Amino acid sequence: MRIALDAMGTDQAPASEVAGAKAAVDADPDLEVVLVGDEAVVGPEMERLGVSDRVRLVHAPDRITSNDAPASALRRKPGSSIAVGLTLHKEGGADAFVSAGSTGAVMAGSLFILRPLAGVDRPTVGTLLPTAKGPTLMLDAGANIECKAQHLVQFAQLGGIYMQDLQDLENPRIGLLNVGSEPTKGPEEIQEAYRLLEASHLNFVGNVEGRDIIHHACDVLVCDGFAGNILLKFYESVAGFLIDHLRSRLNQGGLGSVDLEEAVRVLDYQEYGGAPLLGVNGVSIICHGQSPPRAIQNALGVAAQAVRNGTLEHLTRELDSGAESEA
Amino acid sequence: MRIALDAMGTDQAPASEVAGAKAAVDADPDLEVVLVGDEAVVGPEMERLGVSDRVRLVHAPDRITSNDAPASALRRKPGSSIAVGLTLHKEGGADAFVSAGSTGAVMAGSLFILRPLAGVDRPTVGTLLPTAKGPTLMLDAGANIECKAQHLVQFAQLGGIYMQDLQDLENPRIGLLNVGSEPTKGPEEIQEAYRLLEASHLNFVGNVEGRDIIHHACDVLVCDGFAGNILLKFYESVAGFLIDHLRSRLNQGGLGSVDLEEAVRVLDYQEYGGAPLLGVNGVSIICHGQSPPRAIQNALGVAAQAVRNGTLEHLTRELDSGAESEA
Repeated sequence: MRIALDAMGTDQAPASEVAGAKAAVDADPDLEVVLVGDEAVVGPEMERLGVSDRVRLVHAPDRITSNDAPASALRRKPGSSIAVGLTLHKEGGADAFVSAGSTGAVMAGSLFILRPLAGVDRPTVGTLLPTAKGPTLMLDAGANIECKAQHLVQFAQLGGIYMQDLQDLENPRIGLLNVGSEPTKGPEEIQEAYRLLEASHLNFVGNVEGRDIIHHACDVLVCDGFAGNILLKFYESVAGFLIDHLRSRLNQGGLGSVDLEEAVRVLDYQEYGGAPLLGVNGVSIICHGQSPPRAIQNALGVAAQAVRNGTLEHLTRELDSGAESEA
Repeated sequence: MRIALDAMGTDQAPASEVAGAKAAVDADPDLEVVLVGDEAVVGPEMERLGVSDRVRLVHAPDRITSNDAPASALRRKPGSSIAVGLTLHKEGGADAFVSAGSTGAVMAGSLFILRPLAGVDRPTVGTLLPTAKGPTLMLDAGANIECKAQHLVQFAQLGGIYMQDLQDLENPRIGLLNVGSEPTKGPEEIQEAYRLLEASHLNFVGNVEGRDIIHHACDVLVCDGFAGNILLKFYESVAGFLIDHLRSRLNQGGLGSVDLEEAVRVLDYQEYGGAPLLGVNGVSIICHGQSPPRAIQNALGVAAQAVRNGTLEHLTRELDSGAESEA
């Protein structure tokens, strides 16, 4: 089990990456991590932290930043950590790829280098939203701004298999983000997706409204990337704001000892370790650019679990059987 | 100053309505409230609470519930509190109308009875979202699921005037809900709305992302009713969930005395008193179906302020000048 980790992804690179890799291999004796990045900065950090010999380094001289246009940066910088890491995965030198770099560049690189799976029109980024009773995989989280009904149905297929394998759910509940529970609510493409999902073999539980999400109304929440992006960014910011606000109020009241971090762990994204890119021919996990070592460690754990469970094979099989039942 | 209040709107009707009306007239010596509802239930409640003689009753025998289809219910039940109250406003017997009844029925009734303002294609429901630094008026909040660019621009005009008058803002900042800050982000109709808003005389501050809302990036947030509905319902439910969750955690830690209600008042919708229906020829305010008396009182206060400030005249003038500058 060997995972390629972009060592130049986070804002604190390569410190978060090297520390996260060290923690991950220390916790999992069967795991190897290949750090992909500039040896001049990654090497000294590995030495400083004294990593296990199951953490190795592959040199990649270039770095794609969030200021680069994703697609052209991949062409202009073939030596970038994202391009080198994905190629390593593609050619079998690693079983998966994890990066906290530019989401657009990881997405574009995964499409160009790993290629989409047969039967997938639009690979999609999923994000695990913390809810009152467990995580909900929301997809698309921003990669595909406008979607047709069949794209939404493919998201449901991809997300269902992912949650089966990664969260050990037998029959994940698929919900469709909408403004009401009735099948006739919302824009035409969502009404059509409702009909297609109802006719499918998926465990479709119907429309899910904004107010239902936090109560864990479904395991997989399907939406276009416009709604997904806005919901995700809003959620992260509201949780962060409330924690800061409450901390300041409670401190004023002399209650500085209250462990708010613990109290609001239910909303902690770091626990979930990265957003899977689903529908490409490989295992590609995208992390937040501000990921601390624990988030990197968790993302490596998620990637390892996806490889061990054969998630890619399950996805391929599901898409094949979907194609057959249509034929 | 006389406001018609649907006495049959809330789930607790007419108790919330009568108590809210009593509190409102007690606080404002120039205010009269006309309760519109079934005299057999509203009369005794008025007597029980001992309301001022500035609270009167107009009988309306019928009630539209959330199970009724809005448009047909208005036709089938001409004696409904919504139809009677709006007609009273239309004919000059009241300066405004406030209801916590079916949003769809108040919307449909306002369109049929008050009629849209000249120059408005789509009247819209706005909602005040609590943020870190004050309220943001989000519109559309769910009345218009799919919108063209010119509808979004009209929402910006209507919302700008409303915030000027009701929140005393000189030059409200208009933001466009989108997935990135660049003008080329998002669906085509939003890109077109960006260009139209930039060319307008409005104080357009550009695209606002999901993460910016809580930090009060704008005073008026323009979006279609699909995104608005989902965001609003999600926000309400997350705030409620977090408060419950924290209360239970803090109680476990023996901190039951922490006044969480006070700490999270920043997110309290009741403070803002109702959602204005903008773009009809009248003042129509919609309240939450579970409004307690304080929310009803605040909604009556908002309606009174809109009347005193001449908001309807301002809207008419703004739309006229918009039409002239296009001609």
